[in-house]
Amino acid sequence: MQLQTLDDVLMEQLADLHSAETQLVEALPQVASSASTPELRTALEEHLEQTRGHVRRLEEAFTTLGAPIPDEYCEGMEGLLKEGKEIIIAKGDPAAKDAALIAAAQRVEHYEIAGYGTARTLADQLGHDDVKRLMKETLDEEAAADEKLTKIATGGFFASGVNEAAAERR
Amino acid sequence: MQLQTLDDVLMEQLADLHSAETQLVEALPQVASSASTPELRTALEEHLEQTRGHVRRLEEAFTTLGAPIPDEYCEGMEGLLKEGKEIIIAKGDPAAKDAALIAAAQRVEHYEIAGYGTARTLADQLGHDDVKRLMKETLDEEAAADEKLTKIATGGFFASGVNEAAAERR
Repeated sequence: MQLQTLDDVLMEQLADLHSAETQLVEALPQVASSASTPELRTALEEHLEQTRGHVRRLEEAFTTLGAPIPDEYCEGMEGLLKEGKEIIIAKGDPAAKDAALIAAAQRVEHYEIAGYGTARTLADQLGHDDVKRLMKETLDEEAAADEKLTKIATGGFFASGVNEAAAERR
Repeated sequence: MQLQTLDDVLMEQLADLHSAETQLVEALPQVASSASTPELRTALEEHLEQTRGHVRRLEEAFTTLGAPIPDEYCEGMEGLLKEGKEIIIAKGDPAAKDAALIAAAQRVEHYEIAGYGTARTLADQLGHDDVKRLMKETLDEEAAADEKLTKIATGGFFASGVNEAAAERR
C-alpha cells in the first residue's frame, strides 16, 4: 500500500468499500434466508438489491476518477461476515437468532457508514463533486438500512418486535 | 453458540465486545505511536485509557449478571485491526497515512457503537438496568471519540486538519 497523497487515501477507501460490498452481495442471500421473521427477511432481501447498486456506484466513482476497478480484499468485512456465519449455524430459538442476526447486520451497516462517511469527506476536500454525490447517496441508504433494522428489532414498525418475541420465551 | 433466549443474545454481545475491547487495548499503543500529528497521537493515547475502562465496565456487567468472563474471540475486531496494521506498515506521506489511520479508527469506533447500541437496547428490554447504564456510558464515550476523530481529520479543532495537510502535498 502506498499513501503519498489524499487521492491515494480516497482510492484506498473506495477499493476497500468495493471489496466489502462485493463480499456482502455474496453473503446476503444466505443471511436473508436464515432469518425467521418475515419483515427481517424482506428487509435483508431489499438490502441485497441496494447493495448491488452500491457496487455499481463505486464502479462509477472509479470511472469518474479514471481509475481501474482495483483488486483489493477487505479484511474488515471478512471478519464481520465470519461473525454472521457463526449466528447462521448457531442452535437456538428463531426469534433469538433473528435478534443476533440483526446485531451482526448492524455491525456491517456501521462499517459501511464509517467508510462512506470518510470517502464522502475526502471527495469533498479534493473537489471530486461527482464522487462526493455518489458516496452521499449510498451513505444515506446505509443509515436508513441501519435505522430500519433497529425498528425491526425494537418493534417500532410492527406490533411485536423481534426482541420482544424472543424475550417472551425466557 | 447457543441462542435460546434474549439473555443468551445479550451475553453473546457482551462476550464479543469484551474480546473486541481486549484486542483493542493490545493494538492501540502501536497505532498511537505510528500517528504523526500530535493531536491524533494524543487522542489515540487518551482512547487507550478509555478502552481499558470499557473492559472494566464489561467485566462489571458480567459480575452484575452473575456470569463468568467468557472466553470468546471477536473475529470482527480482528479484521478491523488487520486493516489498521496494513496502514501502519504502508509507505507514504505522514499526513496521508494519518488520514488513513483515522479512517481505520473510525471503522473501529462504529463497530463498537453498533455493538454497545445493541447491548444497551437488549439490557433495557430485559430489565437489566445496571447493565444498560454501563453500556450507555461506554456508548457515549465511543460516539464522542468518533466525533473527535472527525474533527481532527477535518480541522474543526485545529487551524489545519490532517486531511488539509495531506491535500496540500498533492
